[in-house]
Amino acid sequence: MTETPPAPKATAPNAIAAVSEARQWDRLMAMAKLGAFRGVDGSEGVNRACLTPLDREARRLLIGWATAIGLAPSIDALGNLFLRHEGTEPGLAPVLAGSHMDSQPAGGRFDGIWGVLAALEAVQALREAGIATRRPIEVVAWTNEEGGRFAPGCMGSMAYAGNSPADAWDAVVDGEGIRFGDALREHLAAEADLPRRPLGVVGGQAPHAYVECHIEQGPRLETEGQDIGIVTGIQGSRWFLVELLGASAHAGTAPLSLRKDAVQDMVRAIAALNALMDDPTDVLRFTVARIEVYPNSSNSVAERVRFTIDFRHPAAKVLLDRGGRIEPTIRAAVRHCAVTVTERFHALPVEFDPMVTEAVARAATAQGLRALRMPSGAFHDAQFMVPLCPSGMIFIPSRHGISHNPAEYSSPEQVAKGARVLAQVLAELADLAELAEG
Amino acid sequence: MTETPPAPKATAPNAIAAVSEARQWDRLMAMAKLGAFRGVDGSEGVNRACLTPLDREARRLLIGWATAIGLAPSIDALGNLFLRHEGTEPGLAPVLAGSHMDSQPAGGRFDGIWGVLAALEAVQALREAGIATRRPIEVVAWTNEEGGRFAPGCMGSMAYAGNSPADAWDAVVDGEGIRFGDALREHLAAEADLPRRPLGVVGGQAPHAYVECHIEQGPRLETEGQDIGIVTGIQGSRWFLVELLGASAHAGTAPLSLRKDAVQDMVRAIAALNALMDDPTDVLRFTVARIEVYPNSSNSVAERVRFTIDFRHPAAKVLLDRGGRIEPTIRAAVRHCAVTVTERFHALPVEFDPMVTEAVARAATAQGLRALRMPSGAFHDAQFMVPLCPSGMIFIPSRHGISHNPAEYSSPEQVAKGARVLAQVLAELADLAELAEG
Repeated sequence: MTETPPAPKATAPNAIAAVSEARQWDRLMAMAKLGAFRGVDGSEGVNRACLTPLDREARRLLIGWATAIGLAPSIDALGNLFLRHEGTEPGLAPVLAGSHMDSQPAGGRFDGIWGVLAALEAVQALREAGIATRRPIEVVAWTNEEGGRFAPGCMGSMAYAGNSPADAWDAVVDGEGIRFGDALREHLAAEADLPRRPLGVVGGQAPHAYVECHIEQGPRLETEGQDIGIVTGIQGSRWFLVELLGASAHAGTAPLSLRKDAVQDMVRAIAALNALMDDPTDVLRFTVARIEVYPNSSNSVAERVRFTIDFRHPAAKVLLDRGGRIEPTIRAAVRHCAVTVTERFHALPVEFDPMVTEAVARAATAQGLRALRMPSGAFHDAQFMVPLCPSGMIFIPSRHGISHNPAEYSSPEQVAKGARVLAQVLAELADLAELAEG
Repeated sequence: MTETPPAPKATAPNAIAAVSEARQWDRLMAMAKLGAFRGVDGSEGVNRACLTPLDREARRLLIGWATAIGLAPSIDALGNLFLRHEGTEPGLAPVLAGSHMDSQPAGGRFDGIWGVLAALEAVQALREAGIATRRPIEVVAWTNEEGGRFAPGCMGSMAYAGNSPADAWDAVVDGEGIRFGDALREHLAAEADLPRRPLGVVGGQAPHAYVECHIEQGPRLETEGQDIGIVTGIQGSRWFLVELLGASAHAGTAPLSLRKDAVQDMVRAIAALNALMDDPTDVLRFTVARIEVYPNSSNSVAERVRFTIDFRHPAAKVLLDRGGRIEPTIRAAVRHCAVTVTERFHALPVEFDPMVTEAVARAATAQGLRALRMPSGAFHDAQFMVPLCPSGMIFIPSRHGISHNPAEYSSPEQVAKGARVLAQVLAELADLAELAEG
């Protein structure tokens, strides 16, 4: 027989062994210092909002680690950061792997950042194992996945995937009135030393695949004693902003019958929405978690209230039907205020591609790990990559299912298992492509 | 007949004529520039929180006008500002007249500040008319009546009256985490050039009387075509702060049945309080107008909510009975959160002294004005002066009854009428005292 290219599945074990549990954990803990705060229960949380100095510091730390092992950084117009491991055939479509680096305001040390560090760890392990891949692999950190500072989330991946234009959110303001467009410009100026790449698919060449590691953010893997979640898809999400305009008045003099009290109309609206969203199966997710009152003075009747709605469901039909009834329900419930309802995020459920999910399943099996096929309740950047290329995700257990909370935790061993599965998946995807196309 | 002291009622008309409608209006508009902002309806409002640089600027402007006509400034440990018109018998108890200079966050140009400027105008008119009063008259500007930045309101008058110790509110923080005690220290340091006077009643000598001019902040005078409100008393007020502690969680993954959602418990609490506070006669005032949510991120279930309750009623019994049921009602309504209810302000209803109310009635009649006896729905610094000395208030109409709002308005003619009544009342009180005691 003539010489053939090395079989990818044969080379992977070296890379698996090269994944360093200690190195990945140390990097996670180093990142956790950027925005560290102590939760009410004493847990160490992270508050690292996107496009803040802390976010930039985290990116610089990542770039330092990546360039030290020979990866090439570049950023696009949304601030999405790419760290490229070159393939032996640089012209082939790359495999992308990553997640995001921003956190919720009272978030944890794993959500998002682990997916980026796992991709770095996996690529570093491949390189240290001496494995060349024909396809390039790009570690990616998407801008503003959380939407905690600027809503909606997933701006970076949505713009990359062509789901929304690059300037779609320029006018979105954070809690301090800073426009997203201005924060982004300031950020790009601070990163002017990094090579700039065009936003989105370059030269019509979509990625070969996208893989994202993430903590589960729910209790299933832990409860069922599983190591790895083979994510089959993501439930749909719709976000709304509700604005109620009443009239301020003196709390001591204005008769209740004559008031246009925006707080009272908000209470009516939420009560009506609770009835609309009632779901005995407890599958539906309905959340009002952000409220702003103006003037927010205890003795001035509220003139204006803005509140958010986060509505999710795995079935597109439910998402469309009940989501469509949100505005009429609010209008029927409100008595005195002018009502504005704006949809700010609309992501229908997606299913991941077997090319990725089966690679994850094979890797978990090969490594002797217990794996469970499951949908994701949280949305992720991967949701927006689905129309672009075969995509998928790898979950690991979250202690007590807690996330978006300082108590969020996965152990060093659990995150190492996730990175090892990713290393094998990347080796396979970056090589199998060659086989398919060669 | 031997020479007798001038009869006060005979001298007053000169002072009435000396009240300048234009001067008082110009001063009101000059003050309105300090914190000016444009309301949603285009009205010019004022946002001048207590102990801010704007508050200091307003006080300096007032002191400039007062010292230019010979009044002597002094301040006490709470930052209360006094501008003294000396009596021919300086040892007699003074008559105090004034109000406050701070505003609501989205307040108007008249609430509070007019009462201070009316007192200055009245005293200036007395002096320009050549009227000497045997008693001193002190124009007073109380610190933090609104309670918009630091709750509760009326700190200055409460401390002056001995209702609360001077350091009672040192630990109260504003929305930016600044302590009242620190803001006050900074303010006093900035006013170190002003003579300092002891806090409260000096040498056991309570004021002879206290008179406060204020806009009505309700629609009655306008609706009934009256010029002057002879204020007979003030309804009682109780303020509460409610804190709910739940648990943050991921809005996309956490099942509703397992959440400890502080926003949902707030909605339950407010709905239950609405039922408790139901009043078909529409006399009771119940307001929730300030809400803070943590972490206030649309996709993180709310861990904590703080909201305020402002509850008022003219009957002490209702205030005590229903006020006492607020905490149990909240505890019964809340399902998942830990509850803390703190009472932050407690002022029972007061009745004003006939010595003042009758002087106001006589002055209005003498000036051919239409006057109505009425209680006050809003609380005022005068409420805390009642235990100390004969006290009373003079109301003028508020357009459409609107207050705590940029649209707050009283005309130049209306404020002039109020100042003229005050001038006569001050002349009478500062002289009649002599007759009563002489």
